[in-house]
Amino acid sequence: MIETPSLVDQYCHGVLRTELGLGTFEAQLGRTEGPPAPGTTLFDTQTGFAVRRWCPPLLGLEPHCPPALYLARRRELGVLEAGRRLLRGSGITTYLIDTSPPGDLTDPAELAAAGDAEAHEIVRLEQLAEQVADTSGTVESFLANLAESVHGAATHAVAFTSAAGARHGLALAPEPPGPGEVRGAAGRWLAARRAGDELTDPVLLRHLLWIAVATGLPLQLHAGLGAPGARTDRTDPALLTDFVRATAGLGTDLVLLHGYPYHRHAAHLAGVFPHVYADTGAALVRTGARAASVLAETLELAPFGKILFSTGAQGLPELHVVGARLFREALGRVLGGWVAEGAWSLPDAQRVARMLAEHNARRVYGLEGGL
Amino acid sequence: MIETPSLVDQYCHGVLRTELGLGTFEAQLGRTEGPPAPGTTLFDTQTGFAVRRWCPPLLGLEPHCPPALYLARRRELGVLEAGRRLLRGSGITTYLIDTSPPGDLTDPAELAAAGDAEAHEIVRLEQLAEQVADTSGTVESFLANLAESVHGAATHAVAFTSAAGARHGLALAPEPPGPGEVRGAAGRWLAARRAGDELTDPVLLRHLLWIAVATGLPLQLHAGLGAPGARTDRTDPALLTDFVRATAGLGTDLVLLHGYPYHRHAAHLAGVFPHVYADTGAALVRTGARAASVLAETLELAPFGKILFSTGAQGLPELHVVGARLFREALGRVLGGWVAEGAWSLPDAQRVARMLAEHNARRVYGLEGGL
Amino acid sequence: MIETPSLVDQYCHGVLRTELGLGTFEAQLGRTEGPPAPGTTLFDTQTGFAVRRWCPPLLGLEPHCPPALYLARRRELGVLEAGRRLLRGSGITTYLIDTSPPGDLTDPAELAAAGDAEAHEIVRLEQLAEQVADTSGTVESFLANLAESVHGAATHAVAFTSAAGARHGLALAPEPPGPGEVRGAAGRWLAARRAGDELTDPVLLRHLLWIAVATGLPLQLHAGLGAPGARTDRTDPALLTDFVRATAGLGTDLVLLHGYPYHRHAAHLAGVFPHVYADTGAALVRTGARAASVLAETLELAPFGKILFSTGAQGLPELHVVGARLFREALGRVLGGWVAEGAWSLPDAQRVARMLAEHNARRVYGLEGGL
Repeated sequence: MIETPSLVDQYCHGVLRTELGLGTFEAQLGRTEGPPAPGTTLFDTQTGFAVRRWCPPLLGLEPHCPPALYLARRRELGVLEAGRRLLRGSGITTYLIDTSPPGDLTDPAELAAAGDAEAHEIVRLEQLAEQVADTSGTVESFLANLAESVHGAATHAVAFTSAAGARHGLALAPEPPGPGEVRGAAGRWLAARRAGDELTDPVLLRHLLWIAVATGLPLQLHAGLGAPGARTDRTDPALLTDFVRATAGLGTDLVLLHGYPYHRHAAHLAGVFPHVYADTGAALVRTGARAASVLAETLELAPFGKILFSTGAQGLPELHVVGARLFREALGRVLGGWVAEGAWSLPDAQRVARMLAEHNARRVYGLEGGL
Repeated sequence: MIETPSLVDQYCHGVLRTELGLGTFEAQLGRTEGPPAPGTTLFDTQTGFAVRRWCPPLLGLEPHCPPALYLARRRELGVLEAGRRLLRGSGITTYLIDTSPPGDLTDPAELAAAGDAEAHEIVRLEQLAEQVADTSGTVESFLANLAESVHGAATHAVAFTSAAGARHGLALAPEPPGPGEVRGAAGRWLAARRAGDELTDPVLLRHLLWIAVATGLPLQLHAGLGAPGARTDRTDPALLTDFVRATAGLGTDLVLLHGYPYHRHAAHLAGVFPHVYADTGAALVRTGARAASVLAETLELAPFGKILFSTGAQGLPELHVVGARLFREALGRVLGGWVAEGAWSLPDAQRVARMLAEHNARRVYGLEGGL
Repeated sequence: MIETPSLVDQYCHGVLRTELGLGTFEAQLGRTEGPPAPGTTLFDTQTGFAVRRWCPPLLGLEPHCPPALYLARRRELGVLEAGRRLLRGSGITTYLIDTSPPGDLTDPAELAAAGDAEAHEIVRLEQLAEQVADTSGTVESFLANLAESVHGAATHAVAFTSAAGARHGLALAPEPPGPGEVRGAAGRWLAARRAGDELTDPVLLRHLLWIAVATGLPLQLHAGLGAPGARTDRTDPALLTDFVRATAGLGTDLVLLHGYPYHRHAAHLAGVFPHVYADTGAALVRTGARAASVLAETLELAPFGKILFSTGAQGLPELHVVGARLFREALGRVLGGWVAEGAWSLPDAQRVARMLAEHNARRVYGLEGGL
């Protein structure tokens, strides 16, 4: 009744190229600090159960089959063929890919080929700054190269993304830092920096955000859950309110990624500010059988033209599948339920479903087929 | 099965007197900073869909008819007749009206006549202070006139309301400010003030709250969503805990308006403190098809004698209708579901429904028919 | 379909030994500051309705019978016999009991005998410190006796519990305080202390936590709702993140009690950190007919091996009954629903149900029958 033939995944990553054993596969199912507690396994999570529900049939097995059986079948097919079957079974036709995570992940072209889909690149600001720092000798050259790199990336990327929330927290001063402040912070950071150090300086994080805003490309901000190290209370998107207000009317859209468990706060900002959008999808991968309830909470305050789908998947094509299937099923159940109650009309529900699945993302990111 | 023949709307505003076009009507459907984003409309929100569900039948149209058709019919009937039909179809028999919003809104007598209902006035403290400031020459006369105005208003109003949460945030020092502190703050504010300036000084906001508490009239405090400019995290009613404790036992009831997305925190305070009440209703207008879920969350911790209904409607009689219909339907569905499961008895559910719809408000505000 | 034949209540208290009248019974149904508001009663709460649903049949009455009838029957049977019938009807086979609340409550041996169950003691750190302070003459003897008492308690208790969140808030410095800091704080506290004074000094609260962590016994931390006096926003378990990280890898498990309304935050920590567990159950007693929804929210992020059941009951055996029945019914409804939708397999659901009801607690607390 509520159909979403084509999905645009507005935020995900590539998948691992190597064959995986039970333990290496399990480690990708959660974002933890340390191995599972004795007597427990990450397969016993909503994500683990969702993978066992949706993925075995795509590889010719029964739903809910034991993990060891699934992994054996996956190795039998080989990582490439299993990945092809999974990605092509997800229903995703366009991937927007943050290429920043370290490790041996497929690049956008490979993911597009494997999934018989389109793929576009999202550039992570902090990683760009770290790369520029590796190759810049002085503060002046660092800052000049940084600006050039961001503007250069804007010519081929579809969006920027920032993990300032996980790095520092979202309670950043809203205005752009002054040039002297930026030079001072850059000098201190470059002097103290060792290879591999992450950028966490709040002045430089803000400087990056404002360079990105100046390009006009949509800017995705991680909020709510995400990196395991983040203190949840420092990633409440409500903390962004002043930054959001400071960037209003500049012509750059802000997309609040994840959101959960503050997805209602993200939805509120998307309702109040014309240039703010809320993500749904990544939280569904984490909450599995609860996907319909979590999606419905996002649908309370966010205008329907301001909600975007993503999987947030990384490492396993199973997570792209789970994100897409949970989203579709949840959307069908939630909107279908409202139609059944008489709260919504069927044509409205069908129209809104396609907006969330595809059309909003095509419009925001300027993809073909946008409305 | 669960009937609520009569509703007391414990917090709302008047309606616009002018004929509205599609754009001016749409602008009333949300509280935004700026016009809708390109490619989006405020009709595509829970509020917009709820208006299209409940209001067209009251004007002789099919539910979910297109906005343009609805607006054409509304203009055909005229703003007065459309307003009469809508308000009389809402089921609200008593309106408590905050008369402070600027603009050409109907006053309580007009709303009562149009809706064939009773209406009483709620006085907004900050607006009273701004009016007194306009007509007082010195700090001393300002403070004397302010006290006199608040006590004078208490003789005809049924409640005071404060938007200190939206103006400054709810993290106010809990105790009354000292006389010297108040004089100092008043002096600085009056000296710097230009006509139309809003009162945001935290010392004067607290002074106002304590003058109001001294009158014994119920004091409504905006919390959670409300003004678009408010930072959500600064309006968590939990921030009021120390003020709530400081006012315990003084004989003045505090009513936490809105609450959402912190309605569980508001419900907690209503459960712990005898003089605290939680509002439900305004959040339902914003969350539409999710009304039953949001209402149910308020019903977790708040004692059933401590929950009050409101619409929070402003500008459009459609919002009074939507608030009332969503509340009634949600209440019937939530309580009826608990009866069906055996969790509640039917007589208990019927009794609680009338408490929320009417009896609690009659008791708290001293209205006729109170229990 | 989803059966939980045996429940381990990982956190509760004893029950009152005295006969109760309507008013003294009602006062145990909530945690309030002051008597119910005029015109309201604590029987009109989710807890009150749940007691009236589940308990009358255990005493031979109809569900939902009037409170006065129930209390008359309870007195007719006598507090001992009524307690036996109630506790034996709860389904709880092992009680872990925090013996710290003041008043005439049954001790673990009595509760075990009345309920035909096992019982083990949980020691509350702050109470232990207050008892040691009562009998120690100097700072040096206080600190030496304190360490000795905690280590001594660890030989017979199954867990420690701390109410630092209600006493001070959970935003405590994460590292152990230095010896000089502890001596200074102890000196100031002992000098100013009068009999009955509660320990609220943050340095001593942290010192206690770290002595307890050193014993290796599971440490239960109150978070979210609990003591009525606590400011909810200061008990968000997210505030514990740095303490949690500081205690990782030391071999001591942390159990976040209550959690609600921050149970999603508690579940997140249980998902990220191997040594963190989330409680469910106490919140169900407070939220009654909403138990399934609240439980489901905890089941979003917490791995299923990291969730523990408790009632948090105190004073009335009715609360043990309500906690156990609500948990069982909610678990059956939530997991059964997911099985019906195809989201989970039935064997998985049955296995997870027993983990939450019993097996996780047996493993964490080293009880017989642990897996």
